[in-house]
Amino acid sequence: MDKTALFSLTYGLYVVGSMDGDRPVGCIINTCFQVTCEPPTLAISLNKNNYTLEVIQKTQQYSLSVVAENTDPSIIGQFGFYSSRDTDKYSDYGFTENAGTPLVNGDFCGRLILEAIKFVDCGTHVIVIGQLKDAIAGKGTPMTYSYYHRVIKGKAPKNAPTYVAEEPKAQEGTKQKFRCNLCGYEAEFEGDIPDDFKCPICQAGKNMFSKVE
Amino acid sequence: MDKTALFSLTYGLYVVGSMDGDRPVGCIINTCFQVTCEPPTLAISLNKNNYTLEVIQKTQQYSLSVVAENTDPSIIGQFGFYSSRDTDKYSDYGFTENAGTPLVNGDFCGRLILEAIKFVDCGTHVIVIGQLKDAIAGKGTPMTYSYYHRVIKGKAPKNAPTYVAEEPKAQEGTKQKFRCNLCGYEAEFEGDIPDDFKCPICQAGKNMFSKVE
Repeated sequence: MDKTALFSLTYGLYVVGSMDGDRPVGCIINTCFQVTCEPPTLAISLNKNNYTLEVIQKTQQYSLSVVAENTDPSIIGQFGFYSSRDTDKYSDYGFTENAGTPLVNGDFCGRLILEAIKFVDCGTHVIVIGQLKDAIAGKGTPMTYSYYHRVIKGKAPKNAPTYVAEEPKAQEGTKQKFRCNLCGYEAEFEGDIPDDFKCPICQAGKNMFSKVE
Repeated sequence: MDKTALFSLTYGLYVVGSMDGDRPVGCIINTCFQVTCEPPTLAISLNKNNYTLEVIQKTQQYSLSVVAENTDPSIIGQFGFYSSRDTDKYSDYGFTENAGTPLVNGDFCGRLILEAIKFVDCGTHVIVIGQLKDAIAGKGTPMTYSYYHRVIKGKAPKNAPTYVAEEPKAQEGTKQKFRCNLCGYEAEFEGDIPDDFKCPICQAGKNMFSKVE
């Protein structure tokens, strides 16, 4: 069995948000599809370890923000590599509340507000089926999961600490490539990583990076 | 509610195949995601009117072929716009049987063989959750649903009857655009559509085309 065939499935990226009382929680998923048109329902899949799932199971209310190619990539890191159990993922961005769900501020292709109507136990994960309560169109090109792997990891965003390091100023051969053990982000430095460097994707510190090659 | 926000969800395209006795049946879907990693399970969504769903509910065995950008687009038409109830969709292409499921011959990014373990009633549709039994890697770039709409409809494949009609030989203003009522494919002709023209995507005849504008 060659499981690399699974890598050819196409996905988008979505921020799931829900309110734990007055505290916004959320995470990033790539698993989402529309199930029915009338009424509009969507399915998403969430890991059982995921705090956001616990909250949706309590409240039934959640939002999906469709990540665009120009969405601030640190949102992906913040929502993708930490747990809402012990992190306020929204604090750097702020959020707007819509029908009891949080929408993280930023550039997104669209926002969907849903009410969970069914939870399907699938072992390590739960499929949440939700009915669309509201939808707001946004702007930009939807980021595919493949684009995230291919482009975002390969290039630092303009505001990221690595942007200067990637300028073609250094001489060929003096740079060392490092990879983030947490999210796979790669950056090049001359010599060692600066002590105060943080991964622009997941905010991991210098000690989470390993030399490549 | 602006439901156009739903258009920003990202999908791939997949041929679902199953065996109705010794007869291969199948259809095209865009709704598929991996649910769990251990064991590998996937979710797809199928319309209840879909004959392929009936067969999977009987046999539990089905295959997914991941459509590539270079997959023969007439396969999308054949599998997407007809019913296996009254059409042998495989006859023009042939198929290979793998673990009791049919794999339509052609270029695909990957093949997945699954066994259904759960059916979730969602109104007009059913989510089929299946466990991966085998996987075969293929080649090519996975076709996104957005690529299908943007590129395949806009351009005729090289072997398609419209290819010549789209050459920039005709004078500006003498061409008329026609749209297939069945699948939305657009083609331009000088004057009327030729009597023997068939939609390269869904095989619909001349009478299924309407003038655009």
